[in-house]
Amino acid sequence: MKKIEIVQGILDANQATAEGNRAAFDNSNCLALNIMAAPGAGKTSVVLRTIEGLGAGIATGVVEGDVVSTVDAEKVRDVAQAVVQINTKGMPESCALVADMVDAALSKLPLAELDLVLIENVGNLICPTEFDLGEHLKIVIASAPEGDDKPLKYPLIFADANAIIINKSDLLPYVDFDMEAFTKSVRDLNADVPFFPMSCKTGEGVSAWVEWLKGKLDSK
Amino acid sequence: MKKIEIVQGILDANQATAEGNRAAFDNSNCLALNIMAAPGAGKTSVVLRTIEGLGAGIATGVVEGDVVSTVDAEKVRDVAQAVVQINTKGMPESCALVADMVDAALSKLPLAELDLVLIENVGNLICPTEFDLGEHLKIVIASAPEGDDKPLKYPLIFADANAIIINKSDLLPYVDFDMEAFTKSVRDLNADVPFFPMSCKTGEGVSAWVEWLKGKLDSK
Repeated sequence: MKKIEIVQGILDANQATAEGNRAAFDNSNCLALNIMAAPGAGKTSVVLRTIEGLGAGIATGVVEGDVVSTVDAEKVRDVAQAVVQINTKGMPESCALVADMVDAALSKLPLAELDLVLIENVGNLICPTEFDLGEHLKIVIASAPEGDDKPLKYPLIFADANAIIINKSDLLPYVDFDMEAFTKSVRDLNADVPFFPMSCKTGEGVSAWVEWLKGKLDSK
Repeated sequence: MKKIEIVQGILDANQATAEGNRAAFDNSNCLALNIMAAPGAGKTSVVLRTIEGLGAGIATGVVEGDVVSTVDAEKVRDVAQAVVQINTKGMPESCALVADMVDAALSKLPLAELDLVLIENVGNLICPTEFDLGEHLKIVIASAPEGDDKPLKYPLIFADANAIIINKSDLLPYVDFDMEAFTKSVRDLNADVPFFPMSCKTGEGVSAWVEWLKGKLDSK
């Protein structure tokens, strides 16, 4: 008797599409990152610093997710090998990228020529946790001026992270951000996740992140 | 022939509940604010500064919306007349408060004793725009370190605002935030909305916001 496959709801359908995206990345030997953060934490600045840090030897494509506008895509168009903008406006899942959107973007990227795809998600600490996009690694960016209590208030996104960047470290002298409290809150959710404090403005701390990422690129 | 009323989907149902909430606020002669911002923009700090600025003559209740945790409610419990925590976790609309949640919170607030209810929404610039909670005024808080491009990227929330606070103005010397660009982007969406740059850390600029709010309390 044939097994009847049932796709249950939007999350199962998303998962199936995400697995297809991951297979497409794997077939092209391409590492894919899902970069998530609150609005204004510096996702695009991290994308720019990452491409700069990796240098010309790594061909990087960028998928920019925004509700509307092409502000971010315009910032990266000159440094990335290829850029695709996704505008989520008007779709029911407008608060996050979903796998279908990334699937559509992949057809516009020269995957065979790329080593790395940086998927910059919509600015949101809640909705993106629901949707696997087919990435290999989830990168969460916190920023010092947001305060150290974000892992307590948005635990899911920190629990799922494969690496955490703490951006805007140049502002640490001017804001109330207790690195020890932040670290402890994250460790309670995600015991071994690596931390990368950095300032995309000054460049401080970027190299440690880039070295970690190079290791992931080498071992893929 | 009788008219058949149809409740169409979740947004219509939400609107009906929101109107009920607004009637409850009106019946108690109570002004209700829906305070919205990205994570870490300083919603709770604005709530604290507002209660302090209004002084003991205004009885203020607070509804704290968070995915999980009571971190914010604990910060305001000693200064507000009454506090109710809503945790949205596990509900389908976990990325924003909805009118039903506020309806449930109202039964736990001594509305007849209150002049003002501050509803602190979940940290999110996208989802809260969809759901009327029954408030009288929508207050959006941006923060200087988030950057000046947020109105371009999250236009709906800025278009609907009745007042915009630009918090963390003490960080303006250290971040790239072009007030003129921000103001122009907002004006293109919302021509007459008042702006209140302030620092909840230093207190600078808080009084202009409090005076404006006093005017709204007086005219309700």
